[in-house]
Amino acid sequence: MPGKRLGEQTIVFEHPPTILGAATVVGKKEGEGPLRATFDLRSDDTTFGESTWEKAESRMQREALTRAVDKAGLSLSAIEFVFAGDLLNQCIGTTFGLRDCERPFFGIYGACSTMAEGLALCAMTVDGGYAAHAAALTSSHFCSAERQYRMPLEYGGQRTPTAQWTVTGSGAMVLSSHGAGPYITHACVGKIVDAGIKDVSNMGAAMAPAAHATLSAFFADTGFKPETFDLIVTGDLGALGADLLRDLFAQDQVALGTRYTDCGLLIYDREAQDVHAGGSGCGCGAVVLCGHILEGLRNGTWNRVLFCGTGALLSPVSTAQGESIPSVCHLVALSKTPATA
Amino acid sequence: MPGKRLGEQTIVFEHPPTILGAATVVGKKEGEGPLRATFDLRSDDTTFGESTWEKAESRMQREALTRAVDKAGLSLSAIEFVFAGDLLNQCIGTTFGLRDCERPFFGIYGACSTMAEGLALCAMTVDGGYAAHAAALTSSHFCSAERQYRMPLEYGGQRTPTAQWTVTGSGAMVLSSHGAGPYITHACVGKIVDAGIKDVSNMGAAMAPAAHATLSAFFADTGFKPETFDLIVTGDLGALGADLLRDLFAQDQVALGTRYTDCGLLIYDREAQDVHAGGSGCGCGAVVLCGHILEGLRNGTWNRVLFCGTGALLSPVSTAQGESIPSVCHLVALSKTPATA
Repeated sequence: MPGKRLGEQTIVFEHPPTILGAATVVGKKEGEGPLRATFDLRSDDTTFGESTWEKAESRMQREALTRAVDKAGLSLSAIEFVFAGDLLNQCIGTTFGLRDCERPFFGIYGACSTMAEGLALCAMTVDGGYAAHAAALTSSHFCSAERQYRMPLEYGGQRTPTAQWTVTGSGAMVLSSHGAGPYITHACVGKIVDAGIKDVSNMGAAMAPAAHATLSAFFADTGFKPETFDLIVTGDLGALGADLLRDLFAQDQVALGTRYTDCGLLIYDREAQDVHAGGSGCGCGAVVLCGHILEGLRNGTWNRVLFCGTGALLSPVSTAQGESIPSVCHLVALSKTPATA
Repeated sequence: MPGKRLGEQTIVFEHPPTILGAATVVGKKEGEGPLRATFDLRSDDTTFGESTWEKAESRMQREALTRAVDKAGLSLSAIEFVFAGDLLNQCIGTTFGLRDCERPFFGIYGACSTMAEGLALCAMTVDGGYAAHAAALTSSHFCSAERQYRMPLEYGGQRTPTAQWTVTGSGAMVLSSHGAGPYITHACVGKIVDAGIKDVSNMGAAMAPAAHATLSAFFADTGFKPETFDLIVTGDLGALGADLLRDLFAQDQVALGTRYTDCGLLIYDREAQDVHAGGSGCGCGAVVLCGHILEGLRNGTWNRVLFCGTGALLSPVSTAQGESIPSVCHLVALSKTPATA
């Protein structure tokens, strides 16, 4: 496979797909945060006009996909495949959200790594010549996630300092075989990593080793160093997980430096917004990538970016059965130019 | 995209991947059914030596993957990507099952269409030149599914005649860029179809319209007729859904004839085994495909087969909120020869 694979986990795209359009939909809290100007739709209504939070999540996905397709200058019928998933049991945010869109659909489950997983598969599909246009899509919702994973909101449980706040938001991105960039040049597909963490209020600690493993594999596979990139961003490690990731690299004598940050640290004002360790959820990485990061790639703030989606692959049942938290991190490399070297 | 796409939903593989190996693991009831001789491992213990049914499901996936890789004459490290998912919340059958396998992993969610979805993505990955070997894997377990989707088993609830029996089983298949077949020649990627069915004890009726839509799209995209194939098999429509599918095609003046059947009708003896409308679950299509169907392709019983994975994309939450049951069907075409025409 000359030119298509490097090492064990990395794919190099021969014809790097262009990011033709992207859109974001967020809730009230996200719309009040520091990235407010980068979102396409901000809603003050947690149900987005629907009767339940789960239906709100589906509504967000429909809105994000429709807007991303519009911004790409396409009609929905031009999208040949949609790769999408979410955190809800049986991914109903996605399946009901896409019920009426009549597009060939691949359901994916990568927990909070879903946006990166979807983009990797989208890019393979476009680069491989199976589609001219494909879309990746995901969402999360604070209220639907809390009641599914933790407690009824009415219970008013206290949160520990290591806990993160699930982002209410959906992000969609349309990739194309033709266009002037920014491009997706590489993907690095994660292996499942389980460091033995059992504290479900400390997902950052559970996921940091997966981020370390995938980034390390990517650097080993490609020969790139962190300095090759202007920005390295994880999806939702939060304050604690981001510190742990720096520490893990420091043990390898690798300094990530100020080029490294986490979407969960960017999306909220942690002083003013009472989110403890920061944002989390499939929507966290997705809306920061599809808004803030894409904007920065387009306006020249950054030329090369590594987006590392991080997912905790547990369930309340696995936790009740005494299990630790396996995690995965998928990476996509974005670039203003199509150069892969 | 010359030669890679036909019509809206169908992919034609330029270099059809070979099925290099496959394996199946099943429970007691499946091991007592008419296909007993086609399974690699039959267990009389519903927990497969583990402490819970969910852990049993993970154990089944590990066993199926390990055995499929062995039968392919490979080591696990030769598998470049694994595509896997299951029915459990957050796909924990898969994520804990693959936790220690250290392979690049794409999590997928297609409900009972998972095996076909995984094979379509595997085949794209191998045909597209991203991997020499990749694997698709899924499972279901009667006991874990009952307590998650329906009632505690101890409750002893009565089942309606339209209900199906979730197969306890896991199937894994290894695809390769080189080999003497059988081959995967085409994939047809499903759109979500919702016919408005709300009866969760009648999944066959909910999924039949999706199977009809995908098969119709495949025939329209390729110009093939049902007669091109020796066997057309759906994943788990059961008795009622299979009859509905015949009826839907009869309305189109298309006779599926005796070449059509359903894995849910093949796996159990419906007279003797008290399974009402037949088998269901991700494992149903997977173990029938990886055992019985692959054997028939290899020994010349059939030369060309359409395997149509059918999935109901609901959750107990969506049902409680009054929703109908959206469904999807993904199709892969298998052939003794690599001819795609």
